[in-house]
Amino acid sequence: MEILQVEAPLVCTRRVDGLRDISLRVLRNTKTGKRQVAVDPVGAREGNMVFTAMGSAARYAAGDFRILTDLTICGIIDNWEE
Amino acid sequence: MEILQVEAPLVCTRRVDGLRDISLRVLRNTKTGKRQVAVDPVGAREGNMVFTAMGSAARYAAGDFRILTDLTICGIIDNWEE
Amino acid sequence: MEILQVEAPLVCTRRVDGLRDISLRVLRNTKTGKRQVAVDPVGAREGNMVFTAMGSAARYAAGDFRILTDLTICGIIDNWEE
Amino acid sequence: MEILQVEAPLVCTRRVDGLRDISLRVLRNTKTGKRQVAVDPVGAREGNMVFTAMGSAARYAAGDFRILTDLTICGIIDNWEE
Amino acid sequence: MEILQVEAPLVCTRRVDGLRDISLRVLRNTKTGKRQVAVDPVGAREGNMVFTAMGSAARYAAGDFRILTDLTICGIIDNWEE
Repeated sequence: MEILQVEAPLVCTRRVDGLRDISLRVLRNTKTGKRQVAVDPVGAREGNMVFTAMGSAARYAAGDFRILTDLTICGIIDNWEE
Repeated sequence: MEILQVEAPLVCTRRVDGLRDISLRVLRNTKTGKRQVAVDPVGAREGNMVFTAMGSAARYAAGDFRILTDLTICGIIDNWEE
Repeated sequence: MEILQVEAPLVCTRRVDGLRDISLRVLRNTKTGKRQVAVDPVGAREGNMVFTAMGSAARYAAGDFRILTDLTICGIIDNWEE
Repeated sequence: MEILQVEAPLVCTRRVDGLRDISLRVLRNTKTGKRQVAVDPVGAREGNMVFTAMGSAARYAAGDFRILTDLTICGIIDNWEE
Repeated sequence: MEILQVEAPLVCTRRVDGLRDISLRVLRNTKTGKRQVAVDPVGAREGNMVFTAMGSAARYAAGDFRILTDLTICGIIDNWEE
């Protein structure tokens, strides 16, 4: 599971049906700067360090297998120091 | 889910059966320049910033699990600024 | 789906049962030079630019889910110019 | 399966249901320095070199398919020398 | 499927149940030097160039879906020249 930092919510009006009414977040790798989009079922806030699951685990972690994500926030890390 | 930019449609006459009559798009990573091919069920246009799902989510997001893709556009991002 | 160039067929006498009697191809990433092996159900020739699917889609695209590949050629691109 | 080194346990109060009461570990790639989070069913200690499985194998290896991980420690390597 | 070179067997006393009594091999990418661990159902020897499957194909290729690997040797390449 990857360790990433939460940035702003993703604003996205046009989406596939499997992601309607789902809160999406932009996450950033603090080492490489690479950004990804993830589903957030834990209520993370901007600046939080989180870890994420990919693949089929991401869909179950989103709370419903029908949610069509490949990346989901699985937890907020309490005190992360690199 | 990755964040990529839409380029031209992909012209491809010879394909496997699982991708017949499917609209394919070339997407480009604006940081690395890497190009990939994705199925587009949302009607994205050239220049749009989109996010994509991989794996089994890509096949469901394409609208039919029998579509043999490993990358599908899941939404068009409203106002993307890096 | 990745964009790769077809090189020579792969010569491989000893294989697992799930890849018996299957035509295998060496593909090359023209940017990084990295080589991979893929199943070819579309009859691509040396020099063709193709796109490929990974994961479970690769097995269905090979024409039979029992074929044990993680990479399959899904189509030949008509006129590729970088 | 990747070869990684065990660091400290991960302290994480807020998590998805599929990871409740699960021991999580921070693992580090000794070449690139990249850190990841994994489930540990084998009782690895700080400094151990381990190998890990990704994907659906990770969930079965965690001892229960309902555990929502994409990375699980599968074994402790006896004497690793690079 | 990746192209890798076989190194020594992996010595590993403590493992998850899904990898008991399984022959494990250290494989090396000859370009990047990166090492990975794979299950070997074909009897490869040190120095052989092999190709491998990831994901669910890796588990079937290992001869039994219950084997918890994410990387399996699928064939030995006859005469590999880069």
